[in-house]
Amino acid sequence: MDQTAIYRIPYGLYYLGTTANGKSNICVVNTVSQVTDEPKRVSVTVLKTNFTCELMLQSGTFSVSILDADSTLADIAHFGQQSGRNVDKLAEKAISFDVLGNPVYKENCAAVMSVRVTQTVDLGTHVMFIGELADASVESDKTPMTYAAYRAKKAGVKVEAEQAAPATYQCKICHYVYDGEIPFEELPDDYVCPVCKKPKSFFVKM
Amino acid sequence: MDQTAIYRIPYGLYYLGTTANGKSNICVVNTVSQVTDEPKRVSVTVLKTNFTCELMLQSGTFSVSILDADSTLADIAHFGQQSGRNVDKLAEKAISFDVLGNPVYKENCAAVMSVRVTQTVDLGTHVMFIGELADASVESDKTPMTYAAYRAKKAGVKVEAEQAAPATYQCKICHYVYDGEIPFEELPDDYVCPVCKKPKSFFVKM
Repeated sequence: MDQTAIYRIPYGLYYLGTTANGKSNICVVNTVSQVTDEPKRVSVTVLKTNFTCELMLQSGTFSVSILDADSTLADIAHFGQQSGRNVDKLAEKAISFDVLGNPVYKENCAAVMSVRVTQTVDLGTHVMFIGELADASVESDKTPMTYAAYRAKKAGVKVEAEQAAPATYQCKICHYVYDGEIPFEELPDDYVCPVCKKPKSFFVKM
Repeated sequence: MDQTAIYRIPYGLYYLGTTANGKSNICVVNTVSQVTDEPKRVSVTVLKTNFTCELMLQSGTFSVSILDADSTLADIAHFGQQSGRNVDKLAEKAISFDVLGNPVYKENCAAVMSVRVTQTVDLGTHVMFIGELADASVESDKTPMTYAAYRAKKAGVKVEAEQAAPATYQCKICHYVYDGEIPFEELPDDYVCPVCKKPKSFFVKM
């Protein structure tokens, strides 16, 4: 059996937001799907160890932003590669709140949905949340980002970096690629990764 | 609320096959998703009135073929726009059977999965089937078909047809577009749609 067959399923990419007990968080997921049309319901599967999952089990609501193809790797790394348990990911971003009180990040976003959970399914490592639309808006007519396009974009950054001189450096924690005007080697010693705030020593030459 | 926001979720396109009580059927769906990685599980949502759904509730297994971008509109119409209750859709197609006895159509297929159902979720109009991979294979390295690419392909056929002379005809039942060498008007009166077998009178000028 070649289990990698499962990775050929095409996906989109989404910001998933929720608020519980005064804490709001947004993470990145790829498994959002419509499940019925009348009423309009969607499902999303979230890893149990994920902070957003913990909050969603308490809040019973969530927001989904459908990323468009112009979404930046820095934004995806910001919301997708750090945990809301350690970092307030919403602190320096333009966040709005939906009718259910869930945080929404609308930068490079094709559409937003606000969802009230009606069913949860225990899947061992993950919880599937199924819910009904409470609100929804189309934010742009741009092409939604697919997971394949996201990976191509990431690979493209690597290729460009390899071709470029001087050398490019990447944060090994959040994969943020430094692309400033000043050569990386000349940055001050107290430079920190703008995404995950790790010190300069966490950057590796690409 | 703009409910059309939900249609911006990107999807793939899949042939869904099953066998129960000596009857095999394949239909077309767009809502297949991986739900866990350990073990490898997928979900699929199927309309209750669908013949395949009826069979899947009895068989407890199904096959999924991930369509690649070269899949033809005729094949998609063949499996997607007729009911297995009225037509034996497998009769004139190169069908193989997986380890669980489910029919599989591998023409223009990126990967195949054989799935044993472990949970079902009643969603009113639909049933969600969640199951574990029993077998899987990668069939090609071609790009999987997205639902957006499928719609663009359909629209492209229409545009080409409009630009072409002589006039193009389409079956109003299954949307098969006649593209033979002989002008449609000159076809014999007993010509039938190669996909849904409806007579010549069911074709409309595009």
